[in-house]
Amino acid sequence: MNIIEAIETRRAIKHYDADHEMPAADLAELIRLTKLAPSSFNMQNYRLLVVRDKALRKEIRGAAWDQAQVTDASVLFIICADLKAHSEDPALYWSHAPQEVQDILGPMIKPFYDGKDQLIRDEGIRSSAFAGMTLMLAAKELGYDSCPMIGFDGAKVAELINLPEDFALSYILPVGKQSKGAWDRGERLTDEKVVSYDRF
Amino acid sequence: MNIIEAIETRRAIKHYDADHEMPAADLAELIRLTKLAPSSFNMQNYRLLVVRDKALRKEIRGAAWDQAQVTDASVLFIICADLKAHSEDPALYWSHAPQEVQDILGPMIKPFYDGKDQLIRDEGIRSSAFAGMTLMLAAKELGYDSCPMIGFDGAKVAELINLPEDFALSYILPVGKQSKGAWDRGERLTDEKVVSYDRF
Repeated sequence: MNIIEAIETRRAIKHYDADHEMPAADLAELIRLTKLAPSSFNMQNYRLLVVRDKALRKEIRGAAWDQAQVTDASVLFIICADLKAHSEDPALYWSHAPQEVQDILGPMIKPFYDGKDQLIRDEGIRSSAFAGMTLMLAAKELGYDSCPMIGFDGAKVAELINLPEDFALSYILPVGKQSKGAWDRGERLTDEKVVSYDRF
Repeated sequence: MNIIEAIETRRAIKHYDADHEMPAADLAELIRLTKLAPSSFNMQNYRLLVVRDKALRKEIRGAAWDQAQVTDASVLFIICADLKAHSEDPALYWSHAPQEVQDILGPMIKPFYDGKDQLIRDEGIRSSAFAGMTLMLAAKELGYDSCPMIGFDGAKVAELINLPEDFALSYILPVGKQSKGAWDRGERLTDEKVVSYDRF
């Protein structure tokens, strides 16, 4: 599918074929493509929880205003951020680069973030959104639809999935085969409201 | 361009043809496509500042570790979040929907966010990342490359662009014609590190 068509036809789909099981090859391809999304310092600080267990998804649905897509989509991704990614060995992220680049960038990561909790959180939310947007568009090519969601009880879902203390839950992303389309796309705000030039 | 190819070939490009000017039609198309990105409650709470003024871009480069892409890309987007979007008239976001849906969703927005500063900020960072990732992939179709950046003095850049008090600066996104490619793509973390199943 052409990238423009993927952007134009991606919609937040709420109704899915609950009997569809995603083939392992499709799941692997979605994960491969998601991992090509950009992240600061190449930290790849997003984390993907793939929830397929039916009983657990029923419990998560109970914590998410009973929205049907939580149980009915083929796969439920819970997109998280690893808030300690900047503290890990920089070689994890930079071993591909020329040694002189590693020598400059490696030591920059930790001091750039250390002690800056809001920046660390912003970075985690941002990276996990870059990753998930990539996933949503890749899904279109593979014949799937998706529905990014923040309407749920975050503390309850965190408990259900054993969210580690140094992770943040960014959002939930059901991906599956649509059984019913969306209504007409919501109106776009005007360019005058969304776009400014040079200075605000 | 196929969506998979766009995802696979998008790289953070740091060197651009400084003489290239983006045609108005290309800029308009990039903005149109960016505005199709999803956002919670369809609030479209991202804001795009398009910086073309050369003198201003030189000043921003000075606040961004002197990185050449800030001045040399055809257009510099500064992607922001409107932190008061949830307080506006819900009809702005929902006038397309059936009246009974408007009656349910409209009154939900304000109470969902009011007083929850971290949630409001997360939402702004998330929406602006969904929008910018869409922009980066759309740019590939139009023959452009991009480079999402957070390496800059946020307070200084905010001052230079007169960032409104209730906006957050999410990240900077130069878009232009590459004059030199990227080095090999950084290693990806293993699936074992990035992906978990059912529970952490």
